[in-house]
Amino acid sequence: MADTVYKLLSKIYTPEDLRLLPVPELPELCDELRCFIIDAVSSNPGHFGASLGVVELAVALHYSYNTPADKIVWDVGHQAYPHKILTERRERFHTNRKLGGISGFPKMAESKYDAFGVGHSSTSISAALGMAIASKIKGDKSKAVAIIGDGALTGGMAFEGLNHAGVEKSDLLVVLNDNNMAIDPNVGALKEYLMDITTSATYNKFKDEVWGVLGFMNKMGPNYQKMAQKFEKSIKSIFLKRSNLFEALNFRYFGPVDGHDVVYMARILKDMQRIRGPKLLHIITKKGKGYKPAEENQTAWHAPGKFDKITGEKIVATKPKASSPKYQDVFGKTIVELARNDKDIIGITPAMPTGCSLTYMMEEMPDRAFDVGIAEQHAVTFATGLAAQGLKPFCNIYSTFMQRAFDQVIHDAALQKLNVVFCMDRGGLVGEDGATHHGVFDIAYMRMIPDMVVSAPMNEIELRNLMYTANNYNQGAFSIRYPRGEGVYSEWQKPFKEITIGKGEILREGSDIAILSIGHPGNFVLNAIDTLNDVDRQKVAHYNMIFVKPIDEDILHFVGKNFKQVITVEDGTVVGGFGSAVLEFFSDNGYKANVERLGVPDKWIEHGKPDELYRLCGFDSLSIAQRIKELLN
Amino acid sequence: MADTVYKLLSKIYTPEDLRLLPVPELPELCDELRCFIIDAVSSNPGHFGASLGVVELAVALHYSYNTPADKIVWDVGHQAYPHKILTERRERFHTNRKLGGISGFPKMAESKYDAFGVGHSSTSISAALGMAIASKIKGDKSKAVAIIGDGALTGGMAFEGLNHAGVEKSDLLVVLNDNNMAIDPNVGALKEYLMDITTSATYNKFKDEVWGVLGFMNKMGPNYQKMAQKFEKSIKSIFLKRSNLFEALNFRYFGPVDGHDVVYMARILKDMQRIRGPKLLHIITKKGKGYKPAEENQTAWHAPGKFDKITGEKIVATKPKASSPKYQDVFGKTIVELARNDKDIIGITPAMPTGCSLTYMMEEMPDRAFDVGIAEQHAVTFATGLAAQGLKPFCNIYSTFMQRAFDQVIHDAALQKLNVVFCMDRGGLVGEDGATHHGVFDIAYMRMIPDMVVSAPMNEIELRNLMYTANNYNQGAFSIRYPRGEGVYSEWQKPFKEITIGKGEILREGSDIAILSIGHPGNFVLNAIDTLNDVDRQKVAHYNMIFVKPIDEDILHFVGKNFKQVITVEDGTVVGGFGSAVLEFFSDNGYKANVERLGVPDKWIEHGKPDELYRLCGFDSLSIAQRIKELLN
Repeated sequence: MADTVYKLLSKIYTPEDLRLLPVPELPELCDELRCFIIDAVSSNPGHFGASLGVVELAVALHYSYNTPADKIVWDVGHQAYPHKILTERRERFHTNRKLGGISGFPKMAESKYDAFGVGHSSTSISAALGMAIASKIKGDKSKAVAIIGDGALTGGMAFEGLNHAGVEKSDLLVVLNDNNMAIDPNVGALKEYLMDITTSATYNKFKDEVWGVLGFMNKMGPNYQKMAQKFEKSIKSIFLKRSNLFEALNFRYFGPVDGHDVVYMARILKDMQRIRGPKLLHIITKKGKGYKPAEENQTAWHAPGKFDKITGEKIVATKPKASSPKYQDVFGKTIVELARNDKDIIGITPAMPTGCSLTYMMEEMPDRAFDVGIAEQHAVTFATGLAAQGLKPFCNIYSTFMQRAFDQVIHDAALQKLNVVFCMDRGGLVGEDGATHHGVFDIAYMRMIPDMVVSAPMNEIELRNLMYTANNYNQGAFSIRYPRGEGVYSEWQKPFKEITIGKGEILREGSDIAILSIGHPGNFVLNAIDTLNDVDRQKVAHYNMIFVKPIDEDILHFVGKNFKQVITVEDGTVVGGFGSAVLEFFSDNGYKANVERLGVPDKWIEHGKPDELYRLCGFDSLSIAQRIKELLN
Repeated sequence: MADTVYKLLSKIYTPEDLRLLPVPELPELCDELRCFIIDAVSSNPGHFGASLGVVELAVALHYSYNTPADKIVWDVGHQAYPHKILTERRERFHTNRKLGGISGFPKMAESKYDAFGVGHSSTSISAALGMAIASKIKGDKSKAVAIIGDGALTGGMAFEGLNHAGVEKSDLLVVLNDNNMAIDPNVGALKEYLMDITTSATYNKFKDEVWGVLGFMNKMGPNYQKMAQKFEKSIKSIFLKRSNLFEALNFRYFGPVDGHDVVYMARILKDMQRIRGPKLLHIITKKGKGYKPAEENQTAWHAPGKFDKITGEKIVATKPKASSPKYQDVFGKTIVELARNDKDIIGITPAMPTGCSLTYMMEEMPDRAFDVGIAEQHAVTFATGLAAQGLKPFCNIYSTFMQRAFDQVIHDAALQKLNVVFCMDRGGLVGEDGATHHGVFDIAYMRMIPDMVVSAPMNEIELRNLMYTANNYNQGAFSIRYPRGEGVYSEWQKPFKEITIGKGEILREGSDIAILSIGHPGNFVLNAIDTLNDVDRQKVAHYNMIFVKPIDEDILHFVGKNFKQVITVEDGTVVGGFGSAVLEFFSDNGYKANVERLGVPDKWIEHGKPDELYRLCGFDSLSIAQRIKELLN
């Protein structure tokens, strides 16, 4: 659709432009905005359903609040496309998630309208509370709003934020965007509770009365506040004393309201600004709203990839070669295979069953596979509780989100030598999701933990065998990290083979340079060596270490004794990572080889295609080959 | 008091012995147990008030449950002394917290009665839920109980656990031990809510009726369950529909009851075992119960040190030299000094105001100093929200607890270059609290974060100046770590002096060995060098690096060029820590010196006096001196 078709949207560059529109035009603007998003995301993939669900909310917020002076914090942030489009980024929106383009998440450095960078879940209440209190301390009038989904609300830190906000007198508004979904359907007691509220007649009655009063207040002038307070107090003491989870935490609760009624939302968001203290507005929205296929299969349309916007058919890029499975699916299918033969195996995911493919196990053995909601800390300690009773939990958490459970991994799992297997999906650079989501720290933070096994497979078969090995291991915590996306083999379902813990493998002997790689980037090394001429190729040895901890001391002694030049390759930070483990070993054993550590440098890596980012960091095949040649000359 | 005085207690070695007592003797047993604890802790310091508060609970639990088959998880665990004394450890209790003695916290490796190791807060619900579900899966009859305080309940992961438990059909019991305290008085909306419940007539009425029914049930025989369910349902639908925060999360709520009525508690804990599904028993206890001074000043008696059990007077060891202040107090007083001149400074602590000495600021400027409850994640992101609005938060979190906020430090603070100062108290080996509390990972996990300033003062004056420097810094996150306990100067309140970021200092020149130290252990190096003879002493250079990141490259170049032997010293893990930063720099720059890394080795360090542990790890003064001599010969 050309800009001319976006009659209203095409004139909106900033929220100030938006605020010039008369209220009755807002629904039409929402329609245009929704079309724009469908159009943009169908050709340039990104998050989809969540953004469609908050079109009206984004319009109403910017319409009612004085952004950017007022601060809007979008929890998780993958739903922020309408916000981005309304705030100076419509014309750059086609660069979304591309290298050098705008980020798929709100980002402070990108726009003054992005009040807070987000990506990981459940941070918005804490951040917005900080902003609200800062306003109070500084004596300015700016307001703070947190928009949090019902999924993100299950994250413990959201509760920590509510608990604190409830005793502060700052004017924080929390908008609970209730669509009954995380990426997968939301789970847990809170979800059931919200559904209960939503369908309760008492609440709807209360809602009507409160809105009645609010409307009344507007006409009343200066005395409105005292009256409203009286009214609220009396109705509460009769019907609602401690009758609501949020009221129990000192929030004033309003709702639920239809989050797709933009006219109504614009009004109440304005009205509610007159109410002092912490308040929560519960809105009901539909993920994927306005695009039928996305409404009907919300998980699949969370981030659908390219699609035909007319038919809703997904456009799958044709593959030149027989396709390899995703590591995710190897995990998902392998755990089912293992669990069929071992009744002690339990699968756990914090709200990522589709993303990590635990769905296979949840379908086949629902009593032994748990989606615990967005709750990484609980996921880990829950796993240790199972392990304390002799079961064998496989806890699958994306590398970047495992940071949330770092303490639990140390304190509850490793310290107690409990047999939990940590499968860290999305280890390494994840690509388009960018800096907030790269899983680049896990090798470093896992290997500092005593007794932790730290491993990374180079391919699908190794992932299978590491899972098999981890299942047989009974000396404590065992971590396996693997990247997002595809492996290298099409035939990967080979019989299981135990891998000796702490033993790597030699892939190629050579005379001058020893390359030690960990995990999937070992394939980059293979490819790099392939591009060398025959003479050079003989000079390069290659070891696939498989384990960072315990590290293969035999290989390291051999390399330390026989090579003057060593290259380490990892898809993770070079600060304290795998390469540093090699340095430590060499130092402790008096080996003086030159060691060059290739990996993610000590800076933030933004979004882009994984291949672009590997290149940027200098550990793609080409860079490795170049470096080998330079060293050989 | 001799064993003969403990008429009942002296015969109890295991809970089986306890369960042989008739109910009417339980109050007397509780008296004896309380005396025993007072006697023991007065001469061998440890946690005090919390344990006195749960004497009756511990007795009632072991009396009513079939431990160790049934699993009792004590959240935080510093209240577990009565439990330990009742479970085979009375005669070893005098070794509590001593090197080689029993741990001050429940510990799986120590006893089969310690169902789960604890130390950090808010893990019990998750762990006990895992155990309850494991029982269900395995088809055994063992039960799981989590005991959690109202303070620990503010930790987000407790909420994550409740949210999951509420939808599982496992027979989990959560005992909410409500004493209105963390170490300091509890804070937040939840606390107000609990107080509200406790004083509400409706609830007390409900309580009476429910207990009435439960008593009735006992006499009824097999049909009791159906009847009770009916009764409960009807009363709830009238009075209590969604009327309680815990009921909102699908827990059956019972209480509040008097947690010091052991006879009553023994009965209801037995009765409640017949109720299926997740349930919560809210008990009211008094921290320090039965020891007047501890009841009256609960924070001071949380862990009082030695005291005269008759008079309640604390016994302070006489100091041989003019005493140096604690690093804690240097922090607490310095932030007040700084904040008087800079109105942007905010102080934040998650429930440790007394421990970290933020109390000074809370008294003098209560609007700018926040105790946010046991909520490290929120503390950090709340700080970033303040920083996003231009304020300057100093967020003080013990090193070991900062692990809880690792993700927030990365994702919310450092990535966004927000000016938050992280003051990590209790960095390094903390002594008697042991493995769960040592702050040995922070140097390693902080230095892997891009753009993070990682610093550690060698003494009080440096701590002051680092705080001053951090306050002037506006390029992002700045971390300062310092140990528990005393510094080295008695006169430390010198005028502030800015420290150049990334610059260490040379303390001593020397010819053969360069010692690079970070933080307080620099004093161990000073002392070690002092013990050398004059000839040897000339051979040892000593650098106090102050910064791990950015590291002083000038010093490292100089050392790399001029020394063949280097020793690094740190009070933290040698896996990826400060020493590894030196290795990385030397490797990147082609220096081939031998580097020996002294610090905490790659294993779990148990409890003991700090000096004993430094010795054990080989970086106390004596060990350093020995190592120097060995290297020089």
